[in-house]
Amino acid sequence: MDDAVRDFVGHLGYEFADPALLERALTHRSRGSNNNERLEFLGDSALGFTISAFLFQQFPDLSEGELTRLRARLVRKESLAELARRMELGPALRLGAGELRTGGFDRGSILADALEAVFGAVYVDGGFDTARDVILRIYRDKLVALDEDASAKDPKTRLQEHLQSHGLPTPTYEVIEVSGQAHAQRFDVRCQVPGLTVEVRGTGRSRRAAEQDAAQKALAALDED
Amino acid sequence: MDDAVRDFVGHLGYEFADPALLERALTHRSRGSNNNERLEFLGDSALGFTISAFLFQQFPDLSEGELTRLRARLVRKESLAELARRMELGPALRLGAGELRTGGFDRGSILADALEAVFGAVYVDGGFDTARDVILRIYRDKLVALDEDASAKDPKTRLQEHLQSHGLPTPTYEVIEVSGQAHAQRFDVRCQVPGLTVEVRGTGRSRRAAEQDAAQKALAALDED
Repeated sequence: MDDAVRDFVGHLGYEFADPALLERALTHRSRGSNNNERLEFLGDSALGFTISAFLFQQFPDLSEGELTRLRARLVRKESLAELARRMELGPALRLGAGELRTGGFDRGSILADALEAVFGAVYVDGGFDTARDVILRIYRDKLVALDEDASAKDPKTRLQEHLQSHGLPTPTYEVIEVSGQAHAQRFDVRCQVPGLTVEVRGTGRSRRAAEQDAAQKALAALDED
Repeated sequence: MDDAVRDFVGHLGYEFADPALLERALTHRSRGSNNNERLEFLGDSALGFTISAFLFQQFPDLSEGELTRLRARLVRKESLAELARRMELGPALRLGAGELRTGGFDRGSILADALEAVFGAVYVDGGFDTARDVILRIYRDKLVALDEDASAKDPKTRLQEHLQSHGLPTPTYEVIEVSGQAHAQRFDVRCQVPGLTVEVRGTGRSRRAAEQDAAQKALAALDED
């Protein structure tokens, strides 16, 4: 094991019983057919489930839509690449000649894929509980930030704070339609956000629920911008 | 627990320590805010990981792309709804008045979502190993069929067999371009499939690899049809 790999293992906090698995996880396809693509498939899925289970347990009041949004933010390539850089994964990569020449060791997508492959390798080597513990430890800062930040608050509050922090005015909500019978009404609400060109609509069984739904969709649209 | 739920539990093969979790998993959002949407978020992810880990281990020769294709086929709503019907999930559902009237107990998307929620509930109730065992048992027939059928064979063979079984002629492969330096050549191949209007192309570091890649994409295109 060379020094770069040893440094990376230090950041990972897990010693492989089978170091060949780690080597494979660090091998980009530019290096040959014995590469990390299958492990990436596995690790991507282990990561998704680990984060899902954490969010489900940690935030009992968040809706499915909000949980999905938080998960997407945590597992996207940019987040993974940032973690991989912090763990000095780049220097430990095994790249083909072409990628070496063109700086592949610092390419976000290569780093993100390799970190997912490492998660997959930890699962194969040590089982699910081990992989989950490694993933949650590596993600700890991001998960703590979630906790302190957005997610305990409802979508309308978060949308308002988000807009204020960008010096933008308050969003407006307007009921477009109320349908259904008295005991099962459905409210359609439009939310207009200064600076958002898309029209955001929400529905719910009360005006408040429809507004929260619309606010959540507005946050998602802002996230995509 | 009413008879319909008891029958479903028989098919599921798992007794909940906390029956309220099962009740929640069977509650559609039309019934109120205490519904199965959060459990569906969790179960969808537990299912994806369980199937990924099974396929990874079971098919060591399949590429990431082929694994992804197999997984998509197994976890799509149609497959889940079919399993849910076989398990008599419909009669155990708790629906709102509107969905009850319009036959929601046999709607594919409602059945699929509820079965995912049940997987999530098993995970919360019994932990990951239990949820994995339940999922693999319920999926057993489909997984055995995979094994016997397609997946041990390479994409070109599978494409040829698929076309033959539909009485169609053999696909043709044509090298469009060879680029790159001698030690790192890249082959671009076009695969034409009778009856497929889209043009399918594959790339690889050898002619054979490029043809397999093209054949796999052709299979994916046929799957979508």
